[in-house]
Amino acid sequence: MASRHYPAPELDVSEWIGTPHTLEELRGKVVLIETFQMLCPGCVRYGLPQAQKVHRAFPQVTVLGLHTVFEHHEVTGVDALKVFLSEFRMTFPVGIDRQDGGMLPVTMRKYGLEGTPSTLVVDREGGLALSHFGQLDDLALGAVLGQVMADGRNE
Amino acid sequence: MASRHYPAPELDVSEWIGTPHTLEELRGKVVLIETFQMLCPGCVRYGLPQAQKVHRAFPQVTVLGLHTVFEHHEVTGVDALKVFLSEFRMTFPVGIDRQDGGMLPVTMRKYGLEGTPSTLVVDREGGLALSHFGQLDDLALGAVLGQVMADGRNE
Amino acid sequence: MASRHYPAPELDVSEWIGTPHTLEELRGKVVLIETFQMLCPGCVRYGLPQAQKVHRAFPQVTVLGLHTVFEHHEVTGVDALKVFLSEFRMTFPVGIDRQDGGMLPVTMRKYGLEGTPSTLVVDREGGLALSHFGQLDDLALGAVLGQVMADGRNE
Amino acid sequence: MASRHYPAPELDVSEWIGTPHTLEELRGKVVLIETFQMLCPGCVRYGLPQAQKVHRAFPQVTVLGLHTVFEHHEVTGVDALKVFLSEFRMTFPVGIDRQDGGMLPVTMRKYGLEGTPSTLVVDREGGLALSHFGQLDDLALGAVLGQVMADGRNE
Repeated sequence: MASRHYPAPELDVSEWIGTPHTLEELRGKVVLIETFQMLCPGCVRYGLPQAQKVHRAFPQVTVLGLHTVFEHHEVTGVDALKVFLSEFRMTFPVGIDRQDGGMLPVTMRKYGLEGTPSTLVVDREGGLALSHFGQLDDLALGAVLGQVMADGRNE
Repeated sequence: MASRHYPAPELDVSEWIGTPHTLEELRGKVVLIETFQMLCPGCVRYGLPQAQKVHRAFPQVTVLGLHTVFEHHEVTGVDALKVFLSEFRMTFPVGIDRQDGGMLPVTMRKYGLEGTPSTLVVDREGGLALSHFGQLDDLALGAVLGQVMADGRNE
Repeated sequence: MASRHYPAPELDVSEWIGTPHTLEELRGKVVLIETFQMLCPGCVRYGLPQAQKVHRAFPQVTVLGLHTVFEHHEVTGVDALKVFLSEFRMTFPVGIDRQDGGMLPVTMRKYGLEGTPSTLVVDREGGLALSHFGQLDDLALGAVLGQVMADGRNE
Repeated sequence: MASRHYPAPELDVSEWIGTPHTLEELRGKVVLIETFQMLCPGCVRYGLPQAQKVHRAFPQVTVLGLHTVFEHHEVTGVDALKVFLSEFRMTFPVGIDRQDGGMLPVTMRKYGLEGTPSTLVVDREGGLALSHFGQLDDLALGAVLGQVMADGRNE
């Protein structure tokens, strides 16, 4: 079955904290990407805890963080981010979205994200099943994950 | 595709508050059945609110309540139940599980339920996809609903 | 020091579940009275749990429940109430506000309460330090209790 | 009335973000001091939100933050802290606890704090009414504030 979803653009990451990944290499798996900034309250309060909860509850889902910095670059560099991830006990790999001098980092622009936190779900065929900006209900996120986990399971 | 799940036993209901339903008639739909007692704290605190949330969030899921009384019969009759459902704003149909003089009402026995609240999910082919006693995380329930909504969608 | 508060009217209770009390006899103590109806969602969700929490956290505060029924009398009688209090693990004494045929029960009328849940705090001199209808923040309730506990402590 | 509490040590602050304060100057007022580190999860999740809530709910209480850094100094300097306070909408003055090369900053040592977050309440006479490490229930904090607000009110 061809995916019903548009292809998810490849991640453009300048550095990984944890194991590096590409979406191409993850074809065949369900992927959740949590895009965030370490000093964004909504990311800290609900986006990242929800991603961590998915990481724990669904071993069959690959969870990635993407640090999409578009403000306060000077105090949210890689050293600060490493401390943050360790203190807040985030255990999934986190990529740093590439900066090319534009207003927004590259991957964030390719996905047309409105801000942080944004939650992305990529299906087994690399289609973008969800792109949600802001707080996302667990019941709704669970249903999206359940559907893309079911899709292509027997194919 | 044949359901991977055991067939869900038919409901045995002595009276409906709201539109009556049978599982047989609901074949082809995803059904969530919330079994509860009106004076059970866990039912009031999380089971019923979660069922009501599913009812609101997923119009494609048929939500039913099942009043499976096994204690305090004398103060949880149909008149009390009607007041309770109205005050607590439960808007899905509720069946009263048949009493035949046994310790537990009939449908509760057929499903082998351990207590209240128990949440049941029936897939499109009438298979029992979930039978969970006690508090159930929204993320986990969402995933089950997402999977059974995906199953048989194109068949 | 004379209380800065108006005198709290005496309770008019037709029956007690647990040890009977009068405000007169409780002079010198801080008293919290949680007025409720057993099938009122706000009472079950926040009023009564908060009263129970005060009962556990502040042994020096006397906590009482008052069942102020003004609707659905037929299904919220004393037998139903006893089951409810036992199932919901309310461990403080509960009085049943006297019915005299008026729209509202007698004590509820004397206090001019708007509805349920309403939380009342009576100071050591029998003054009404708080009468609050609806949800009440823990921080705000704590501050009222702290103030009336401090008042008259050394006198 | 002489305070029943030990005198709260004076704050030793190297720099203020917002209006500077000393406890000596605040004699006669109730003061809440929230000690925190900007990358400490418990501070972000409950300590600081609770302090902000007190700041909003009780205009008669002076709320101060104290940045007691004892780890990760290199990524939690004053520039990072200013961004953090602005993003997380903390509107009370924040002092930076003086570093003198010891393991812990100076004020933190003088108070014998175990870690962050720690919540301190200073009464009108400069006595230390509360020093609590970790999560603190709103009801309990409210009661302490209510008691120290009542103390010395009429003197």
